[in-house]
Amino acid sequence: MLPESVVEYLRAGARRHLDELMELLRLPSVANTEPRQCRLCAERLAAHLERLGMAARLEGGDDGGPPNVLATALAAEAAAPTLLLYGHYDVQPPDPLDQWQSPPFEPRVRDGWLFARGASDDKGQVMAQLAAVEAWQRAGGGLPVHLKVLLEGREEIGSPGLEAFVAARAAELAADAAVISDTGFLRDGLPSITYGLRGLAYVEVDFHGPSRDVHSGEHGGAVTNPINALAGLIAAMHDADGRVTLPGFYDDVVELTERERREWAALPIDEAEYARSLGVEALGAGERRGYTPLERRWGRPTLDCNGIVGGYTAAGSKTIIPAAASAKISMRLVSDQDPAKVVEGMRQFVAAHTPPGIRAELRVNAESRPVLLGRDTPAMRAGCAAMEEAFGRAPAMIRCGASVPVTELIQRLLGLDAVLLGFGLPEDNVHSPNERLRLDQFHRGAVAAAAFLGLLPRELSAGGCASAPGRIA
Amino acid sequence: MLPESVVEYLRAGARRHLDELMELLRLPSVANTEPRQCRLCAERLAAHLERLGMAARLEGGDDGGPPNVLATALAAEAAAPTLLLYGHYDVQPPDPLDQWQSPPFEPRVRDGWLFARGASDDKGQVMAQLAAVEAWQRAGGGLPVHLKVLLEGREEIGSPGLEAFVAARAAELAADAAVISDTGFLRDGLPSITYGLRGLAYVEVDFHGPSRDVHSGEHGGAVTNPINALAGLIAAMHDADGRVTLPGFYDDVVELTERERREWAALPIDEAEYARSLGVEALGAGERRGYTPLERRWGRPTLDCNGIVGGYTAAGSKTIIPAAASAKISMRLVSDQDPAKVVEGMRQFVAAHTPPGIRAELRVNAESRPVLLGRDTPAMRAGCAAMEEAFGRAPAMIRCGASVPVTELIQRLLGLDAVLLGFGLPEDNVHSPNERLRLDQFHRGAVAAAAFLGLLPRELSAGGCASAPGRIA
Repeated sequence: MLPESVVEYLRAGARRHLDELMELLRLPSVANTEPRQCRLCAERLAAHLERLGMAARLEGGDDGGPPNVLATALAAEAAAPTLLLYGHYDVQPPDPLDQWQSPPFEPRVRDGWLFARGASDDKGQVMAQLAAVEAWQRAGGGLPVHLKVLLEGREEIGSPGLEAFVAARAAELAADAAVISDTGFLRDGLPSITYGLRGLAYVEVDFHGPSRDVHSGEHGGAVTNPINALAGLIAAMHDADGRVTLPGFYDDVVELTERERREWAALPIDEAEYARSLGVEALGAGERRGYTPLERRWGRPTLDCNGIVGGYTAAGSKTIIPAAASAKISMRLVSDQDPAKVVEGMRQFVAAHTPPGIRAELRVNAESRPVLLGRDTPAMRAGCAAMEEAFGRAPAMIRCGASVPVTELIQRLLGLDAVLLGFGLPEDNVHSPNERLRLDQFHRGAVAAAAFLGLLPRELSAGGCASAPGRIA
Repeated sequence: MLPESVVEYLRAGARRHLDELMELLRLPSVANTEPRQCRLCAERLAAHLERLGMAARLEGGDDGGPPNVLATALAAEAAAPTLLLYGHYDVQPPDPLDQWQSPPFEPRVRDGWLFARGASDDKGQVMAQLAAVEAWQRAGGGLPVHLKVLLEGREEIGSPGLEAFVAARAAELAADAAVISDTGFLRDGLPSITYGLRGLAYVEVDFHGPSRDVHSGEHGGAVTNPINALAGLIAAMHDADGRVTLPGFYDDVVELTERERREWAALPIDEAEYARSLGVEALGAGERRGYTPLERRWGRPTLDCNGIVGGYTAAGSKTIIPAAASAKISMRLVSDQDPAKVVEGMRQFVAAHTPPGIRAELRVNAESRPVLLGRDTPAMRAGCAAMEEAFGRAPAMIRCGASVPVTELIQRLLGLDAVLLGFGLPEDNVHSPNERLRLDQFHRGAVAAAAFLGLLPRELSAGGCASAPGRIA
């Protein structure tokens, strides 16, 4: 049980912790486009960590991009185990701006929700964790664990460079357990712990046609149109059953176990309500034969265009065959798919589907591996108990269709199966306009994080393997 | 033969006529986006026409869009026939701006070429015609024909409203012949007269998916992606042989005659050189079975995407399934395709290819009918002779893949087969960056236009039907 003094400290400090979060949310720390704001955000976080008595520094920003924030603090007892805490301070781009009810970087509280880009993903969750650290230090007699903090600044662009960074600092980041707060509840009232995440392979394909935009009347029927050709390429990436047609795409996919399918089928998920929440009349993507929508989201690989542009896109008409068209295409991967192998399949596919008159170019924007975490590690047990203590209910064990690349890096490079202790709700609009975080999730999330810190040493000393192979029987 | 005084007047005035053209080219008269600049351009043209002794006025701009310029002038002799002269003063949008070597609306002369948006299409050709009018009035003893001038301001956006405008003023625009300068030579040194133009059906299709951009990791595999769906729609619009698959699309297409195919095959066209001039390694679009590239461009209907946009299109990665994606799609039509019927086929096709989870919206941006002109009308004979007089060689009789919507309206509503007296060159980069007009084409074009004015009365009095049904035996 969490000491009452720690709980009381968090209760008394709630307003201030919210203010501190709101300060952080004012910084538009978009990794691609706002490297200076990202650095400023990292500096603020480092200063905040130092105020919590930690030794903090920025690293990995030598290329001008967002740096990582690293910090360490000692436990009250020297013999305590070591915990690695990960979060990220960069945020998704805020566009489309005109759909925000209040500006994305002017945080506002309305009806018990905090609205801002990054409120839920991931500044709010990071600050809940840091509030827990503060509470133990100020009111709990010091930290129950030695703490290592890693706050990343490029998570939303696929964590480029993080693998090399973690690999180079494997000794420095070594720990007995790891915790990541960057996920959420399956639904309001149902705390959840995510044990599987999809990986990512994100490419951009450019189709180059004529050397300039040319008249579609004069040349239509002879000159290959890069937009039509690109549409043909993209359309060919799925078959009629919604399966991805890239060569070898499914070769390494680990099938879902019967246990998982049973567990998931029992979850309180209403597909019709899910569709309604997204504003669609029907669900339609993915492998329609043999998999439920939830299985397709959590346990099957997918391919989506994230952006496309070519030719004339302003109001009205322009009669051109454009010089080029481009698409951003990302694939979500499941164990044991290897993003490099998937990209190679994509490369072959693009080459095979580039028609005469078109020159293709392919760039790799991001790659991350899928991960499955052990479900009976000390960190997982401490996480489950902490969630139950803070939210009054044992968490559901779920997977997530998104990627948190660091999870797999921690598993593969540091030998640790992390626990994903997340407090978001499905209604948080992450990656969408009007991102938000419900205030009680923020405050109870801090309680859960504090409880986890208290429970972890016991679970670690009770034993169990820190890193399970990540396969469920 | 053109009076030497008229030729001499044009020679002496060449520099001033170029300056007047350059003045006009400084106005960015893009119909969609610059209605005020269009009106200014129309006012300048009206003032210019009045300086030439014509009664000019603006009409058809009550909706705030570009008006038409109308003007009339009497011939020297009351018994002279009446000629309707058409041109357009609006221009294509100049983007992509960064590919222009000099700004599109700052006309520059380099190496005997005049560079500016609209230099060739169509301000240069209009001003060549007006220089011819001026020469006859100032140095030829007055006009050989009664003249009616119609300068349109919405040609580049498909001439919306022009049909109603011409229909409502059929009596006012009545004439014995019509001339249009908005086309060009098949190649440098080979004057050409276009007797067939393709029509146009231009639509925009929006695919709406989720009510907001959503996370492609969390929802990929369940939520239908509007970009992928739109790519599927566009790809389905052609079969493997490059034929358009819209229902009924080819029903009313008049097949090419053997005479035309023979004539076209004999034209000095090198497909490899054509491909090189566009910067492509190979030609690839259109109906690959049974038709040469030239036949596909001039005599067969086609379908091209002119623009597409959806999702995240800035630098880097964003992992979303976007709320929507849109495409601009235009079809070039040949006789006797009816654009309304083609659009109806498109509507059915879109409905049939809208997958679950997507709501489709279709807007019609422009429609114009294809046209085939009689090749033995008085206007055509006068035009051929005038081209030969000015350029020293009998013109080739060609078709063009582009649309000049007014041609068909003049045929259908006024009962006249116009002659297309055009002076552009294939190297003019119309609808592309670095549009240009070669100065000698401008000046000799004015001579051809003047010769046409002198030759027309004779051909009309010699007889022949003014409007042939437009079919070649």
